[in-house]
Amino acid sequence: MTQPAPKLVSGLGGSAGTVGTVETQYLDLPHSLRLDCGQGLHPVRVAYETYGTLSPRRDNVILVCHALSGDAHAAGFAKTAPEAGTRDGFAAEERDGVSGKGLGWWDGMIGPGKAFDTDRFFVVSTNLLGGCRGTTGPSSANPATGKAYGPDFPVITVADMVRTERAFLDELGIERLAAVAGGSLGGMQALEWAVMFPDQVDAVVAIASTHALHPQGVAWNSIARDAIMRDPAWRDGRYYDAGGAPDAGMGVARMVGHITYLSAPALNDKFGRRLQFSDDIRYTMTEPEFQVESYLRHQADSFVKRFDANTYLYMSRALTYFDLARQHGGSLVCALGDVRARTLLIAFSSDWLYPPSGSAEIADALGALGKPAELHVIDAPYGHDCFLLEEARQTPIIQRFLEGGSRE
Amino acid sequence: MTQPAPKLVSGLGGSAGTVGTVETQYLDLPHSLRLDCGQGLHPVRVAYETYGTLSPRRDNVILVCHALSGDAHAAGFAKTAPEAGTRDGFAAEERDGVSGKGLGWWDGMIGPGKAFDTDRFFVVSTNLLGGCRGTTGPSSANPATGKAYGPDFPVITVADMVRTERAFLDELGIERLAAVAGGSLGGMQALEWAVMFPDQVDAVVAIASTHALHPQGVAWNSIARDAIMRDPAWRDGRYYDAGGAPDAGMGVARMVGHITYLSAPALNDKFGRRLQFSDDIRYTMTEPEFQVESYLRHQADSFVKRFDANTYLYMSRALTYFDLARQHGGSLVCALGDVRARTLLIAFSSDWLYPPSGSAEIADALGALGKPAELHVIDAPYGHDCFLLEEARQTPIIQRFLEGGSRE
Repeated sequence: MTQPAPKLVSGLGGSAGTVGTVETQYLDLPHSLRLDCGQGLHPVRVAYETYGTLSPRRDNVILVCHALSGDAHAAGFAKTAPEAGTRDGFAAEERDGVSGKGLGWWDGMIGPGKAFDTDRFFVVSTNLLGGCRGTTGPSSANPATGKAYGPDFPVITVADMVRTERAFLDELGIERLAAVAGGSLGGMQALEWAVMFPDQVDAVVAIASTHALHPQGVAWNSIARDAIMRDPAWRDGRYYDAGGAPDAGMGVARMVGHITYLSAPALNDKFGRRLQFSDDIRYTMTEPEFQVESYLRHQADSFVKRFDANTYLYMSRALTYFDLARQHGGSLVCALGDVRARTLLIAFSSDWLYPPSGSAEIADALGALGKPAELHVIDAPYGHDCFLLEEARQTPIIQRFLEGGSRE
Repeated sequence: MTQPAPKLVSGLGGSAGTVGTVETQYLDLPHSLRLDCGQGLHPVRVAYETYGTLSPRRDNVILVCHALSGDAHAAGFAKTAPEAGTRDGFAAEERDGVSGKGLGWWDGMIGPGKAFDTDRFFVVSTNLLGGCRGTTGPSSANPATGKAYGPDFPVITVADMVRTERAFLDELGIERLAAVAGGSLGGMQALEWAVMFPDQVDAVVAIASTHALHPQGVAWNSIARDAIMRDPAWRDGRYYDAGGAPDAGMGVARMVGHITYLSAPALNDKFGRRLQFSDDIRYTMTEPEFQVESYLRHQADSFVKRFDANTYLYMSRALTYFDLARQHGGSLVCALGDVRARTLLIAFSSDWLYPPSGSAEIADALGALGKPAELHVIDAPYGHDCFLLEEARQTPIIQRFLEGGSRE
């Protein structure tokens, strides 16, 4: 397969503290991927960005993994100015005032002098398998039909995402990772990397993540998927040529997700019970009466413009399936038995979707195995979104950890 | 308006501890209701049940008010055996093993020797204004058109529900209430009674309730309503003659509601991450993989069979609007200034939809006013549903309170 050689230096020319302007690149994997479900998948294209410079020994690579609705554009400014509301990453949308400027979803964490310091590390970010932002997913063309896969795209797992990342890094000539890092679903990938490829990962940074989503999280994800699949416009997943996507259901899914990413006190601080129109209610069923109602609708409307509903389903399914104990021998201690990476776990006190207990259970299991693990629970009010917002407090923890030497 | 005189003795003949078999009755209000939105409403029919015997002095009446999805059938067995899944009340559906037997939604609390002791009190329960179980609501015939109101039904408030209850009790010849009691939205009505009719209420029992839903609760309700209104089958509320109701959206609304009624630990105890089919996942997007996913779908399917989507919208709107401080002078202390009833507040430690803080704020305001109020926070794991489930622990608190003498 002929394609341009990957550029191994990128993101230069920005001002201090930023990786500058970045262009997403694309790479086609040469071999079929063997998936957990038993199917093979080919072709697979991977969208990616890199920040910093690969060392001659290729030993300074950090793979950054995104969460449910992210993409490869983790840092810097997108080279092509994004269409309003269509190319902004997860964090950009979450953070007031940043939306629409094309800033990467973890820009506060990746760059010169930042937590993932591009003066030292070569940071690689890919769009996940199943994604809708350049990597092969359900909206990609199925070679068997020439049309979008839709529901014929195989159901994938976090391990399948990691296999894709492994195959992609092979093409870049990168064998080892100095670290693999991510929040939420990204943290699940980091943990899975350490389990699947113990000899190739020096350090894991898993933030606001878990070894298995708790049952209430399973329930929220189930409701979000049902909201999409019950929308008649979903058409059993074959909506791409039907003239309309399941925007109504996707909007509801996003609203459910959004509330689970925030804490109740944060919502109270941000909106309280402030009315939308005036000093009093207007006795309307269809219009927003409270500011929080209007905010949720705005979140829904902007999300459906930039994200594919089937990708949402596949990502949600994968993170719900993820269960290190079930996948690897029945207990978390068994699952982590081969891990050789040093592990950093960061959790947030107000995160009720990925509560600190999940990280603590991982730390306990690694501790029982005598493996190096650090757990930091940051007392912060913003819920699960903290992993995108609390950059200043995560940075020294991550920097100190990454300076802390080699693996076990 | 000619109608049968209300029966003031009912529910006799049951075995000890139960009010026996009960038949829902109906009463048409003689006058137009003047609503908060400024509109008048006529005719209004009220579905109701009574348990116990009215004293000659008519001074032993307890009005019981239901929550979002309840009805007039609060205690005993329905005289007409319910169609499967269509007539069971809120509590009956919530409680494992009770569903489908036609048992009233608060049967554990109402009956001889129970918290609301029908050997002593005459307990009255009505279906709320806006309801779909016999009381006039959006599915009732609009006299202007002869067809169902749909979205032309006026947007109502908790105060409007209380006005309806007041007008209904007038027809029964009942001026004073020994107590008004309810959980959740029912507790809001109890509080509103004490504020609107301070000279006619001796005691208030508000359980798992609040003076104003917190912003996250506002958000959940907004999402649930949006799920209904975004369903194309909702047809702007005019679906009654259209051959289909917005069952898909209603199902999503119910699933959202259901998870907010339960605590995360209760979900964990009940389902954990147990798989639906077997020992392993099946890589399916559309079928339930986890038992909690299957449970949620069952809840959704059974709810849409028994409940009207527009009534859900109106009830949800009313409980979201409810805000004693906003409605009555800007502060909770101002709002409660005229209250003369003794007040009992019960909250549950694990209830995150109506957390104990809401009840505590009411108790504090009443305390600042020097008015008699008791707050009991019961340490129990089932979340908001505790008010329907923790009967044994609520009973002695309520019995002692009701024996505690007359009002201020």
